[in-house]
Amino acid sequence: MIKITLPDGSVREYEKGTTSFQVAQSISEGLARNVLAAEINGEIWDSSRPINNDSSIKLLTWNDQGGKSTFWHSSAHLMAEALEALYPGIKLGIGPAIETGFYYDIDFGDHQFSSDDFDKVEKKMIELAKTKEEYKRSDVSKADAINYFTEKGDQYKLELIDGLEDGNITFYQQGNFTDLCRGPHIPNTGFIKAAKLMSVAGAYWRGDEKNKQLTRIYAVTFPKASELTDYLTLLEEAKKRDHRKLGKELELFTFSEKVGAGLPLWLPKGAALRERLVQFLSKAQVKAGYEQVITPHIAQKELYITSGHYEKYGKDSFQPIRTPNEDEEFLLKPMNCPHHCEIYRSKPRSYKDLPVRYAEFGTVYRYEQSGELHGLTRVRGFTQDDAHLFCRPDQVKEEFEKVIDLVLHVFNALGFEEYTAQVSLRDPENKDKYIGSDENWQKAEAAIIEAAAEKGLKTVVELGEAAFYGPKLDFMVKDALGRKWQLGTIQVDYNLPERFQLEYTGSDNQKHRPVMIHRAPFGSMERFVAVLIEHCAGNFPLWLTPEQYIILPISEKYADYAKKLSEELNISDIRGLIDNRDEKIGKKIRDAEIKKIPFMLIVGEKEQEENTVSVRKHGAGDLGSLNIDQFVEIIKKETAI
Amino acid sequence: MIKITLPDGSVREYEKGTTSFQVAQSISEGLARNVLAAEINGEIWDSSRPINNDSSIKLLTWNDQGGKSTFWHSSAHLMAEALEALYPGIKLGIGPAIETGFYYDIDFGDHQFSSDDFDKVEKKMIELAKTKEEYKRSDVSKADAINYFTEKGDQYKLELIDGLEDGNITFYQQGNFTDLCRGPHIPNTGFIKAAKLMSVAGAYWRGDEKNKQLTRIYAVTFPKASELTDYLTLLEEAKKRDHRKLGKELELFTFSEKVGAGLPLWLPKGAALRERLVQFLSKAQVKAGYEQVITPHIAQKELYITSGHYEKYGKDSFQPIRTPNEDEEFLLKPMNCPHHCEIYRSKPRSYKDLPVRYAEFGTVYRYEQSGELHGLTRVRGFTQDDAHLFCRPDQVKEEFEKVIDLVLHVFNALGFEEYTAQVSLRDPENKDKYIGSDENWQKAEAAIIEAAAEKGLKTVVELGEAAFYGPKLDFMVKDALGRKWQLGTIQVDYNLPERFQLEYTGSDNQKHRPVMIHRAPFGSMERFVAVLIEHCAGNFPLWLTPEQYIILPISEKYADYAKKLSEELNISDIRGLIDNRDEKIGKKIRDAEIKKIPFMLIVGEKEQEENTVSVRKHGAGDLGSLNIDQFVEIIKKETAI
Repeated sequence: MIKITLPDGSVREYEKGTTSFQVAQSISEGLARNVLAAEINGEIWDSSRPINNDSSIKLLTWNDQGGKSTFWHSSAHLMAEALEALYPGIKLGIGPAIETGFYYDIDFGDHQFSSDDFDKVEKKMIELAKTKEEYKRSDVSKADAINYFTEKGDQYKLELIDGLEDGNITFYQQGNFTDLCRGPHIPNTGFIKAAKLMSVAGAYWRGDEKNKQLTRIYAVTFPKASELTDYLTLLEEAKKRDHRKLGKELELFTFSEKVGAGLPLWLPKGAALRERLVQFLSKAQVKAGYEQVITPHIAQKELYITSGHYEKYGKDSFQPIRTPNEDEEFLLKPMNCPHHCEIYRSKPRSYKDLPVRYAEFGTVYRYEQSGELHGLTRVRGFTQDDAHLFCRPDQVKEEFEKVIDLVLHVFNALGFEEYTAQVSLRDPENKDKYIGSDENWQKAEAAIIEAAAEKGLKTVVELGEAAFYGPKLDFMVKDALGRKWQLGTIQVDYNLPERFQLEYTGSDNQKHRPVMIHRAPFGSMERFVAVLIEHCAGNFPLWLTPEQYIILPISEKYADYAKKLSEELNISDIRGLIDNRDEKIGKKIRDAEIKKIPFMLIVGEKEQEENTVSVRKHGAGDLGSLNIDQFVEIIKKETAI
Repeated sequence: MIKITLPDGSVREYEKGTTSFQVAQSISEGLARNVLAAEINGEIWDSSRPINNDSSIKLLTWNDQGGKSTFWHSSAHLMAEALEALYPGIKLGIGPAIETGFYYDIDFGDHQFSSDDFDKVEKKMIELAKTKEEYKRSDVSKADAINYFTEKGDQYKLELIDGLEDGNITFYQQGNFTDLCRGPHIPNTGFIKAAKLMSVAGAYWRGDEKNKQLTRIYAVTFPKASELTDYLTLLEEAKKRDHRKLGKELELFTFSEKVGAGLPLWLPKGAALRERLVQFLSKAQVKAGYEQVITPHIAQKELYITSGHYEKYGKDSFQPIRTPNEDEEFLLKPMNCPHHCEIYRSKPRSYKDLPVRYAEFGTVYRYEQSGELHGLTRVRGFTQDDAHLFCRPDQVKEEFEKVIDLVLHVFNALGFEEYTAQVSLRDPENKDKYIGSDENWQKAEAAIIEAAAEKGLKTVVELGEAAFYGPKLDFMVKDALGRKWQLGTIQVDYNLPERFQLEYTGSDNQKHRPVMIHRAPFGSMERFVAVLIEHCAGNFPLWLTPEQYIILPISEKYADYAKKLSEELNISDIRGLIDNRDEKIGKKIRDAEIKKIPFMLIVGEKEQEENTVSVRKHGAGDLGSLNIDQFVEIIKKETAI
C-alpha cells in the first residue's frame, strides 16, 4: 500500500501501482472523466502511469495550467499525425505547447503549406480524434530510437536523439503515429473536440539561422466545440480592442522610426490622459503622506554597482555612456530605487521621522530585443508610478495596508472589479538563499498575510516565489475579456537598505536599518494605459476620457452660443468639442454616437433663448433641457473619484 | 582731414592724427574726463592713439563693457607694478581682464603669497595710482623684446615672445613698470581709485599641468571708492542668497557623489515648488492653445544626424549608448525639438490646422566639464519648459506676440519687474551665411520687431547676433541685486523644418514648409529656480512658497484644534505646518519670524471657543481674529496669479 496526499492535505491509502486516473475514480467518476494528467510530487505525469511510492498528487483538468498544456502538447501529436496522413513524407521538428495553444515545426519538402491547407488539417485532426486512440508511453533504447527514425528518414528527430542519454528515451504512440517525446499526455485523442490552425510562419531549425527554415504551424484545440467559438469571439474582440490599433485611432501615442522602436511618443490626447492618471494618483498619494521627489534619468555606473543592478542587468541592457576627456561612465537608470536611497541618505533620520515615503513618476530605460517589443506593453523606456517607503520593521504591516488601500482606490476608479492577490513568500526549505534576518522575514511575511486578510483580499499564497531580498504581493487583475494582468506590485526589500547602508537612530539611540517597500499601483504608465485601453475598449471612464462632451449646434446660427458654452465649461475644467460642420443635426448625433462621446449637448433657438442645453447621454438617451450649472453638476458628480 | 562717424550716425571732420581723447574733448570736457578707451572700426584702441584714416568711433567709459575691461586690464599692470615693488625678483606670467575684474599669474619664488599680503598690495596700488603715470605704448623689435626680458630674467615673458612675430610686438610702460602687451590701456593710473584683491589660487603656467604652478591673484578695481563699497556689499548679499546655500537650508535639492556631479536630486520641498511652477505655466499654456506631449529621453543617433545636433555637439557631449547584440546606437537627448518634429510629421497637416503648439517639460542631458558645474545654474541634466510652434509664415508675428504675453505673465507672477528685450537679427552685410529665404527672414525680423514694439518692450537690436537658422528675442532680466540673467528666449527656426522635411498643405493645395518657433519662458526649471532663489533670497511669492502658514498653539491643550484647522486648510489647498513644540508662545513667534513664514496662526482658549485664529502676517504684523473662511479668502486673494 502507498499513501497518497491530496492538495487539501488529506491522505488516502491505495495499492502500489495505482494510477492517478484510478485515484480520481475513487473520488468521483465525473472527476475521472475530466482528468487530463496529474502532478505527482511536483512533476506532471500521464494519468495512466502507475504510482509506486508515497506521493502527493494534484489531479489536473482543463482548468489547470498544467492540464491545458498537457492537452495542447497531445494536440501537437494529433496535428502531426493528421499532417503525416495528408502530406506523406514530411519530416518533423519539435512540437511543444505554448501559452496560447501549441505549434509544430515541419519540413514539408516541396509543398508550400499555407492557410489554404488549414481547413483540411483541422478536419483530419477531428476525424482522428474521434477514434479515441490512446497515447501510449514506451521506454526505448537509443539504438532502437535511432533505428526507428532512420527507417522513417527523419533527420531532425535523429539530431534530437543524438543529444539524449541512453536509458532516458521515451516514445509516445497514438494510432499510427509515433513520436520521440518525454510526455506527459492526456489519456486519448477523444478528449480533443475542436481544433483550429491559427497561423503559419518560418522558423529556423533549432532557432539557428544557419539551419534550414521549417514551417511552424500554430494551432489551438479545446475539449468542447463551444469553447473554440468563445475563443475565436474573444480573439476578434481583443483585435478590436488592441491598444496599438485604438491608440492610433484615438491619437493617443505614436512611434517614429528615427526616434526608435519601443520609445513611444505621447500625442496630446494621450499625454493629457496620462497626466490625468498622474494627477489622480498624486493627489491620493499626497493624502496618504507621500512626498514627491525628482531624480535624473542617468547616474554614474558606481551607483548601480552599489545597488547591484549593474551586476544583474548591466550586460543585457543599454551600455554605459562615456564622456569626452573625463574618466566617467554613466548609465541610463533601469530603476528609481537607488536614487531614492541616495535621497534618504542625504540627511540623518530618527525613528520619529519614519516612515518616509518618496514617490516619483520616474522614467526608466531597459533594453529589450527589437523582436520582443509590443505597443505600449513591451517598451524600452517607461514611466513607473514608483514610490519607496522607508520604515521601521514594526511599521511594515500598517504601511502595507495603506498601500493596499491605494491600489484598490486605483482599481476602483478605473473599473477593474475582479482581482486576486498573490502573496509570494520564502521557500521554507531553503531559507539560506534569502537575505535579511529570519526574524524580519517572519515579521514581514506575517504582516503581508495579515494585511491582505484584514483588507479582505482574495489571496493565493505561493511558497518560494519571493524575491531573494524580500516577500511581495502582486495583484492579478481580470480585464473585461477575462484576460489576467499583473498590476500593482508591493515588495518588501531588505537588500538595498543593506547595500546603501541606510540607517535611522532608534529610540534606544542606536543605529538601525530601515525596511524598504517598493510599490507601483499602475506598474508603468505605458503598460497601464495599454491595459486600460483594451479593458474599456477605448471608452474611458468619464473623468479620464479625452472628450467629455460634444456641442452640436442645430445650425451655424448657434455657433457663437456654442462657443460661449464651451468657454464656460472650460472654466469648470470640463473638456469637449464643438461640431460646427455644415451637417444635419441627425447626422451630427449619429456621428457623436459612433465616437462614443459621453454627452451630447444640442443647442438651437430654444436653448439659446432659455440659456440651456438639450443633453443626450451616450447609452442612456435624452436627459432633457438643463442649464449649464445643472450640466456641470452632473459631470462633477459622475467624475468624483 | 579725416571723417569720424559717431555711433548716432553723425559725421565730423578732424585733422589726420587726431586722438579719440581729442574727439571726446571736442564734444565735452566732462565726457573726455571719463573716456577710458575707444572702439575704432570695431577694434579697441588707447584713447591717446592717433587716428589717421576715416573711421567710425565709439568712445568707451566705465559704463561700457569694453571700457570696464580696458580699465581692469590696466589695473592688472598696476598690480604687477605694485607686486614688483613689494616682492623684488618675482616673475610674471599673464594678467588679463575677466568678467568680474582681472587676475595676474605670478611666480613668487620662495615667498608663499597669501591673503595676509592683500592689504599691503592694495595700499601700494593706490599709492602708485595717485602718481597718475601714463600708460605708454611702444613698438619694439623681437630682438629688443628678448633682450629686455633676458636682462630682467623673466622666462615666462620670453616664452610668450617666442610665439610672437617680429614687427608685431608692443610694450606698455607706466612708471617703472614695463610689460609685454598688445593693449589697449586707459590714459593713466590716476583713473584707478579703489583696489581690492579678492582671492588667490594655484594655476599651471599656460594651463598645462606639466608646467610649474604659479600663483593667480584675482582682484577688482573701481574708478570711485564708493563703487568698491557697493560691490562688496553686493557680494556679501549674493553670498547670503547663494542658491546652493539656500537650496540646502530650505531642503529644496541635493547632490549625491554616487549619482554624479551636475545631476540634482530634487527633495520633496523643491520638487513641490518646481511642480507648482510647472502647473502654473501648464495652465497658462493650455489657455494659450498649447498641447502637452511626452517624448523619451533618448533616441537613435540617426535622429540627431537628421537634426544636425550630432554633427554640432556629438563629440563634446555624452557619447552614444550601445546595446547588446543589435547594431543600434542611442543618444541622450540634448534638445526636445527633433522629437517634436517627429510628432508633427506623424500625420498630414493642412494650413487650417496651423499653428500647432507642442509643449513639453522635457529633461535634456548635455555634458559639461566637471569644473564648469555650478549648483543648479550649470548642470548636466535639466528640464526645459520647452515648446515648439509650427506655423505659417503669415502667423509668425501673432504667435510671437502671444509668446511675449506668456513670458511677461511669468515674470509678473514671479516678481521680476525689470527686463529688456534683445532682438538678434542677421548681419545685413553677410546674408549668405544664414539659411531660409530672404523673404522669410525679412518677414520674420519685421514680425519680431513689430511684436516687441506693440507689446511696449524696451528693446535693444543686435545686428549679426541671430543664429544661422533664424532671428530671436531674448529677455534680459535684472534681479533684486541688479544682476542680469538671460531668461525667456523666443527663436524663429527655418532650419529644422527643412531638415525634417516638414510640410503642410496650403489653401493653394500645394505643399509648404511651416516656420518653427522655439520658446522657453523659464529656460530650464533648474536654472530658473536658482535665479528665483537668489532674486527673492528664498522668500518665495506666497503662491509658490513651501509653507504658507504656521499654526502656533499656545499650549498642547490646543493641539487637536490646530490639527483640525490644518486639515481644513489642506482641503483648500493651503500648505503649512503646526509648531507643536513645548515652547512658550513668544519663542514660537520669534522662530516663525526668523523662518519668514508668511502667516502665523495663533490659537488658544479664545480662538478654540470662537472657532477662529489670531493671524500675524510676516512683515505686516497683527491682522486680528479671523474665522477660517476669512483666512482662506485672504490667501486665495494673495495667491491669485
